[in-house]
Amino acid sequence: MLSDAFPLQGEETDSGAASGRVLARSIESPRPIPAFNRSAMDGFAVMSTDIRHAPVNLALIGTSLPGAPASQSVSPGKAIRITTGAAVPSGADTVIPIELCDASQSSVLVRSPLPPGKHVIVSGEDFQKGQTVLQAGHRLRPHDLAVLSAMGVARVNVVRRPLVSILVTGNELLPPFSTPKDDRISDANSPMLQALASRDGALGKTWPGVADTERDVVSALRECAQSDVILVSGGSSVGQEDHVPAAVAKLGSLEVHGLALRPASPAGFGRLASGTRVILLPGNPVSCLCAYELLAGKYIRLLAGLSSDFPHALLRLPLASDLVSEIGRTDFARVRISHGEVEPVAISGAGRLSTVVQADGFVLIPPEIGSLNKGDEVVVRLF
Amino acid sequence: MLSDAFPLQGEETDSGAASGRVLARSIESPRPIPAFNRSAMDGFAVMSTDIRHAPVNLALIGTSLPGAPASQSVSPGKAIRITTGAAVPSGADTVIPIELCDASQSSVLVRSPLPPGKHVIVSGEDFQKGQTVLQAGHRLRPHDLAVLSAMGVARVNVVRRPLVSILVTGNELLPPFSTPKDDRISDANSPMLQALASRDGALGKTWPGVADTERDVVSALRECAQSDVILVSGGSSVGQEDHVPAAVAKLGSLEVHGLALRPASPAGFGRLASGTRVILLPGNPVSCLCAYELLAGKYIRLLAGLSSDFPHALLRLPLASDLVSEIGRTDFARVRISHGEVEPVAISGAGRLSTVVQADGFVLIPPEIGSLNKGDEVVVRLF
Repeated sequence: MLSDAFPLQGEETDSGAASGRVLARSIESPRPIPAFNRSAMDGFAVMSTDIRHAPVNLALIGTSLPGAPASQSVSPGKAIRITTGAAVPSGADTVIPIELCDASQSSVLVRSPLPPGKHVIVSGEDFQKGQTVLQAGHRLRPHDLAVLSAMGVARVNVVRRPLVSILVTGNELLPPFSTPKDDRISDANSPMLQALASRDGALGKTWPGVADTERDVVSALRECAQSDVILVSGGSSVGQEDHVPAAVAKLGSLEVHGLALRPASPAGFGRLASGTRVILLPGNPVSCLCAYELLAGKYIRLLAGLSSDFPHALLRLPLASDLVSEIGRTDFARVRISHGEVEPVAISGAGRLSTVVQADGFVLIPPEIGSLNKGDEVVVRLF
Repeated sequence: MLSDAFPLQGEETDSGAASGRVLARSIESPRPIPAFNRSAMDGFAVMSTDIRHAPVNLALIGTSLPGAPASQSVSPGKAIRITTGAAVPSGADTVIPIELCDASQSSVLVRSPLPPGKHVIVSGEDFQKGQTVLQAGHRLRPHDLAVLSAMGVARVNVVRRPLVSILVTGNELLPPFSTPKDDRISDANSPMLQALASRDGALGKTWPGVADTERDVVSALRECAQSDVILVSGGSSVGQEDHVPAAVAKLGSLEVHGLALRPASPAGFGRLASGTRVILLPGNPVSCLCAYELLAGKYIRLLAGLSSDFPHALLRLPLASDLVSEIGRTDFARVRISHGEVEPVAISGAGRLSTVVQADGFVLIPPEIGSLNKGDEVVVRLF
């Protein structure tokens, strides 16, 4: 599934709103930065030839401030007072910091020589006109916005956010955060999937709950056919109420159904005839989280131009007790960190939300490993 | 400064919008979860006393589906068809998975015994009524929203986001992302600070640029007195255009001005008489980033209820070349990761935005260390 996931096409957006977005096109500097020779210090702009044999006394003929450049040029024997960021006046090529001088109102004594060009940032020294500053595929960081602003790049072309439709099926489901009543339970997966999709650079759209009939599932899938990805939670197992696999097959193709993954074995994926990717997630919230992280999240991040790698911070610590698994199956083990050790919370118990609430993260046990033993070092991905 | 930073007071918000927010009050489950005995498997609900001596044949008297519970009770010799998540009918205490049975329309052969209670999640097994499920101070993760939804907790009390006013001073500044003209440059710091404040859980508010006069700075600070934090960039050095320290002193107190920090030595902080924290950041974008990360970000995260620890992912790798610093000063060295080694991009060159754009992260050289040598292992915090 991941092999056909490519970053979506670019769209224009305001640079000021682009933090965290991924560039679809590289950014070249439209002008040299700085655009003029600027002083890196508070001091005096001089000709380097004048100070070669310092100490030397120079006449002060003006001031250059940021936003108020000197009208004068510097000629031999002359200097201009200057502050950090101000334009270095024509004629001058060097700035002597204030602390290396003794200045009066009308003259300045430069106490010792400095190399030519010192403390002057020459036009184009930071970025030349036309230079590629940020590459396509780069995710914009806060300080990249500073650079875009400095270059006067007001709009950028960024990878479009994937539109992810979130469908939950189940006659027992009430809307998210409802008060449960009798055997009706509140939809727990939509808000979780919405937050996960947002974390992964997508725009999630939660649809109203879908009844457990093939007709209702088919009709709901059809309504979402304009999105890039449809996440369907529930109805993906093999029970009499599990209509999602058949509905996907009817509207396109069901490519994979059933994974050697605990606790998310009923997960799968396919495509609508429209091309929209459908990912089947178990209805059980813990299994749904597992299938999202191991399957859907990776796919969505690739569409968003991000890495398919897990976004979680990592810790490498020893196991406090054995972690039992089986060869041939990947296990998503919820774990807690305690006293520098990794305590298993649960592998099974997919029906128990407490196993993820109490966990600090998860450990993946790959299919080639049977079980892990107390003391083994494992990689924990932090929730 | 950090010693007086505490999480802001709580505010109510919709649980569905609370991902990433920090709980101001602990969450107790208002009801047992699950609220009824539910099946963890597709199969048959039975009395455990009936299957103690399996194989045994039981009469099928009904079906329990999620959202459509059985109207019948299970009595001796009887069983009810059930699917995952459905209510276990009264009388039954155990669910036999479908794959351990041979069923016809009217009866089911249970092939082997199972312990009483197997595959039934008893009401309250996940969370008991009144049990503390999430503690105050906890930052809500996507799956915590699933738990809030399952419990029917529609509103939560979360730490208010700090309101951070962003002021930039400088006569040379044009609005962010403007086309630079002559010696006028675009304000690079506001968009960067806005994105950084947002990363740290705050609501940033960018104000129009402020002219380099004490009167203008005083008046702008007064306008921001309702915010929790004011970040003022520029005008914090000791030049003739640096009016911020005096303005802060006039409106309250300037507590610290000047830090042993490269490249952000003109940074500082104080308070307005209103209590609003003011943090002075250098106008130079690279220095501004450094002072934000080492000073402002930590303070803002504490107000937001987060950890003052840096939020960056870490790598521990050897230095590809020496990194020169000085004892008594903290250095914010921009570095690149290349072939598993850490290459210094720059420590000085604060005027050059290219030094942060080309960098993958930063290394802090603490004041007690003079210089670091090629081959030394360092901690890189990734941008």
